[in-house]
Amino acid sequence: MRIGVLGTGMVGKAIATRLGSLGHDVCMGSRTADNAEATVWAAESGGRHGTFADAAAFGELAFNCTAGAVSLDVLAAAGAESLDGKILVDVSNPLDFSAGMPPSLTVCNTDSLGEQIQRSFPGVRVVKALNTMNCHVMVDPARVPGEHDVFVCGNDSDAKQQVSGVLESFGWPAGRIVDLGGIEAARGTEMYLPLWLTLLGALGTPDFNVRIVR
Amino acid sequence: MRIGVLGTGMVGKAIATRLGSLGHDVCMGSRTADNAEATVWAAESGGRHGTFADAAAFGELAFNCTAGAVSLDVLAAAGAESLDGKILVDVSNPLDFSAGMPPSLTVCNTDSLGEQIQRSFPGVRVVKALNTMNCHVMVDPARVPGEHDVFVCGNDSDAKQQVSGVLESFGWPAGRIVDLGGIEAARGTEMYLPLWLTLLGALGTPDFNVRIVR
Repeated sequence: MRIGVLGTGMVGKAIATRLGSLGHDVCMGSRTADNAEATVWAAESGGRHGTFADAAAFGELAFNCTAGAVSLDVLAAAGAESLDGKILVDVSNPLDFSAGMPPSLTVCNTDSLGEQIQRSFPGVRVVKALNTMNCHVMVDPARVPGEHDVFVCGNDSDAKQQVSGVLESFGWPAGRIVDLGGIEAARGTEMYLPLWLTLLGALGTPDFNVRIVR
Repeated sequence: MRIGVLGTGMVGKAIATRLGSLGHDVCMGSRTADNAEATVWAAESGGRHGTFADAAAFGELAFNCTAGAVSLDVLAAAGAESLDGKILVDVSNPLDFSAGMPPSLTVCNTDSLGEQIQRSFPGVRVVKALNTMNCHVMVDPARVPGEHDVFVCGNDSDAKQQVSGVLESFGWPAGRIVDLGGIEAARGTEMYLPLWLTLLGALGTPDFNVRIVR
């Protein structure tokens, strides 16, 4: 499948590299067509790179792996016309590091970044997923031994099903992909981040995840 | 041990009943000395009941099981002088139901109710615990099969250790009591509530909990 990955940070690289290794044709998008990180990634992986608009137009499906604080701007730069009708997997978290550590959230409680993206781009089929763990666990759940869960939410059932297929190809067992409902459930997964960050400090490793036990 | 339980709702009753069954001398506190729920509970359990101030003064340790939106007022009514130097286990969540379902939080992101309580009552040894699950799971973790976790946080290590002892008496294995650090970690456990509420809807049962897998 042709997939656009928006963002050249740790998350974007981890997702793009994994997708490439699974045989997908991946284009990594960034603010400028000659971004150094994207150029090196493309040379090393045999993938493509370009602007956010290039990556969005190229992909049949796209991943938003940009910093949450700039995601709406990035998606505006990518262009609604490049994304309309496509699935956008929103992996981002609206973390605000401007006041130092720990970060706060730029939006929470009565709204979420996932909802903001869906409202701003009503033609895009937004699926929030993978934002509750470290990027290396996202693409290789076996890094954390035993069973643990990944959450998906969004308003389009078919889109969630297609994204679940991608997650299964990453190694997530179908039974550990938890459908939380509509995109408003993004509030819960984004507001989990302060607990995740606290656990990161308490456990001293990013190689952990939650399992829902019932 | 003499224990005061502030609050006569589902959480207060579950905690007070469990403490009584473990042999503790429990006083359930409410706004008025003749509260009907507390009177019935005391008659059925052989416990005591009284005002918030009565329960706080009676207990060597106290549980805040009141609705988070009124907890600061309740603790003011209980009186700092009745609580000073004592451990207060804060089980509450700052849920705001005034705009209907789902509730939002009255405080989050850059502050938490646990921190507000500790700041308002600096002489009290506040330990936030148990607020990430249904009250029946709090006092009987075996209700959810398998291993799952309870979080504690607070600024006083000795207080956290004593509270962990109470949690062990409820049935929590020592290895599943996760110390998150200082009281500021209450932000994470309180902001987990939107995800908990979403999971409640998605799973259709309150008998679940999270396990940190690593």
